[in-house]
Amino acid sequence: MAAQTKVAVIYYSSTGITYQLAQAVCEAAGDTGAEVRLRKVRELAPDEAIRSNSAWQAHRRQTQDVPEAEPDDLTWADVVIFGSPTRYGLVAAQLKQFIDTTGPLWTRGALADKVYSAFTSTATLHGGQETTLTSLFSVFYHWGGIVVTPGYTDPSQFVAGNPYGASHTSNNAEVAPDSTALGAAALTARRAVRIGAALKQGLAG
Amino acid sequence: MAAQTKVAVIYYSSTGITYQLAQAVCEAAGDTGAEVRLRKVRELAPDEAIRSNSAWQAHRRQTQDVPEAEPDDLTWADVVIFGSPTRYGLVAAQLKQFIDTTGPLWTRGALADKVYSAFTSTATLHGGQETTLTSLFSVFYHWGGIVVTPGYTDPSQFVAGNPYGASHTSNNAEVAPDSTALGAAALTARRAVRIGAALKQGLAG
Amino acid sequence: MAAQTKVAVIYYSSTGITYQLAQAVCEAAGDTGAEVRLRKVRELAPDEAIRSNSAWQAHRRQTQDVPEAEPDDLTWADVVIFGSPTRYGLVAAQLKQFIDTTGPLWTRGALADKVYSAFTSTATLHGGQETTLTSLFSVFYHWGGIVVTPGYTDPSQFVAGNPYGASHTSNNAEVAPDSTALGAAALTARRAVRIGAALKQGLAG
Amino acid sequence: MAAQTKVAVIYYSSTGITYQLAQAVCEAAGDTGAEVRLRKVRELAPDEAIRSNSAWQAHRRQTQDVPEAEPDDLTWADVVIFGSPTRYGLVAAQLKQFIDTTGPLWTRGALADKVYSAFTSTATLHGGQETTLTSLFSVFYHWGGIVVTPGYTDPSQFVAGNPYGASHTSNNAEVAPDSTALGAAALTARRAVRIGAALKQGLAG
Repeated sequence: MAAQTKVAVIYYSSTGITYQLAQAVCEAAGDTGAEVRLRKVRELAPDEAIRSNSAWQAHRRQTQDVPEAEPDDLTWADVVIFGSPTRYGLVAAQLKQFIDTTGPLWTRGALADKVYSAFTSTATLHGGQETTLTSLFSVFYHWGGIVVTPGYTDPSQFVAGNPYGASHTSNNAEVAPDSTALGAAALTARRAVRIGAALKQGLAG
Repeated sequence: MAAQTKVAVIYYSSTGITYQLAQAVCEAAGDTGAEVRLRKVRELAPDEAIRSNSAWQAHRRQTQDVPEAEPDDLTWADVVIFGSPTRYGLVAAQLKQFIDTTGPLWTRGALADKVYSAFTSTATLHGGQETTLTSLFSVFYHWGGIVVTPGYTDPSQFVAGNPYGASHTSNNAEVAPDSTALGAAALTARRAVRIGAALKQGLAG
Repeated sequence: MAAQTKVAVIYYSSTGITYQLAQAVCEAAGDTGAEVRLRKVRELAPDEAIRSNSAWQAHRRQTQDVPEAEPDDLTWADVVIFGSPTRYGLVAAQLKQFIDTTGPLWTRGALADKVYSAFTSTATLHGGQETTLTSLFSVFYHWGGIVVTPGYTDPSQFVAGNPYGASHTSNNAEVAPDSTALGAAALTARRAVRIGAALKQGLAG
Repeated sequence: MAAQTKVAVIYYSSTGITYQLAQAVCEAAGDTGAEVRLRKVRELAPDEAIRSNSAWQAHRRQTQDVPEAEPDDLTWADVVIFGSPTRYGLVAAQLKQFIDTTGPLWTRGALADKVYSAFTSTATLHGGQETTLTSLFSVFYHWGGIVVTPGYTDPSQFVAGNPYGASHTSNNAEVAPDSTALGAAALTARRAVRIGAALKQGLAG
């Protein structure tokens, strides 16, 4: 019997939009029978910045029990799915800081041959929905990762419309992810798990 | 008195969506007092492919009198604005073929120090709205171009939402550019002309 | 027993540099036991342009018997490896034109779940070695492809130094690919075949 | 008489390679008569990480008197030049964290219409020399910036070979920037200042 696929969902979220996408990713991955770890990355913003934004403060409290991501979560996983709001077309510094701590793993090849995928949220319609994801993929290539995106492999993608990964336009956190965005998040997860499981089995076989 | 700014709008369009954006670009550029050239690039598709698609055939007939772009249109211009539908996140081969004929101009530096900008249309919501433009910008960097995009320099951009250039989602040519897309096209043009005119004056000064 | 892995190597080359990389890719893929198709894309340049460049003319004659790529080569393959010289940070129009003819295959999902990889050559050291490859990957994402690059999965990659795929700096076709570049081409091929074979087996399993 | 052009050079460097490029940028900018601010971004790594690397620790001490970048340095400048080592094809988290603090400036349009340029260093030959710069440019587009790169506007660029900006391959900090890399840094600066000064004059005119 095939071993259970291990999925790490590692995200940053300030006011909770990206977190909702992360939850949809986790739920869909779990529904496939995979073992799932949900991990937030460490906050870099000073407390005063967070306190000045009630939504940010509320979300921080809401997720205080979500464990912080450790490099070992990457080593453990067969499939890694990153999530971040855009910050000017790139992932948030908080997620980048986590990524930048992986040097020792990268040096010994511990990040290679895994499946990687990603999701994002932006304030405006085309303000980083694509660039945030495609620029993040450079990281995966440096790691020797296998990049799996939803493409148009499901009819729902002609509605969600982002072949690079699940995404949502929040209008500055005023609009929560709708069923289309959550569905794209679930598809991104199911597809990454399916390819990751097949690859694991094939490489072991 | 400042010399008139010269603007070349060079585009590819199969069924006319990108052409409508190109017209909005030209009109807005002309309204600034600039001298404007609208140029289509040469078609590469075989006649039978075009005849099999009535919208494509109709658009070809409609624009038969639009002059074809020549490398000299680039030499002439102070500001060059390219338009293309996406083809899988990159510009259409037709536009790329035109770009690839500029070697002699590039070698003698004739493409440098001009202002470049771009617009696009896609079938799905995030299927190349950003990647088509940002990957095209690499061409401009190779040419020594000055890249000017709308950013969020006008309140309308928080609605149109594409800081990289004007764009439209056509749902496979079923939806014509609306006032938001046409407005973004006009803004892209006005901004490129404004910066191009200032730069020309400053460099001459 | 696992079915033989099918590899399509589809390239454009004007003076032969990229062709030499393509041959190294084919040889390495063949050495793994895979079935390999080498295919050139159709030339778009006019005869007079080719005749004005003796190296281009000679290479065209040298490869006159290499079959031209057909969309069906993509359908057939488990692993597709594209090669192109850069043209200003993007693939050559000739390769793009081939890519743009795949609409019917894309529409029916026939390009998804395959492994894709790529290689390139440029005139100058950093004039498209990375951007040509990463922008081409957008095509693969639209297709629902699985993108596999060499990363730093082999010590030779710390010398060749391009995690996005094999590449070579030709100084305008004056320098043929050396053992480092040919080695990177071979690694790119072996890695794509290894992942492609495992994935095929796992998905069938 | 034209007002003096103000140039902010904002960088991150761990072991000093990128700092040497930053110094060359400052010197060349200063030689044009511009007013120059050199600013490092705040370190995010824990003290123990820095202490474990003698080159990192030495560089930190060496630059302890370089002022830390503040958002106001962006407001002040006509020309902003960012420098960062690559971290997997993207800028270092330290620089990204600084960038991510500019929300208030961005919201009120204070970052638009300035000239932006960049430089980078990488451990391996094609491990981010291009992607680090082109992905950073997305930030500038979101800001409404004018992106100016060296292109091939000087014969030296056919040797340095990076049209996207100055860059250096350090082989993990073992190789200091040579005259080619330092020359490209100087060219990047001179070109950004030239365009920035002309634009400032033209817009004021």
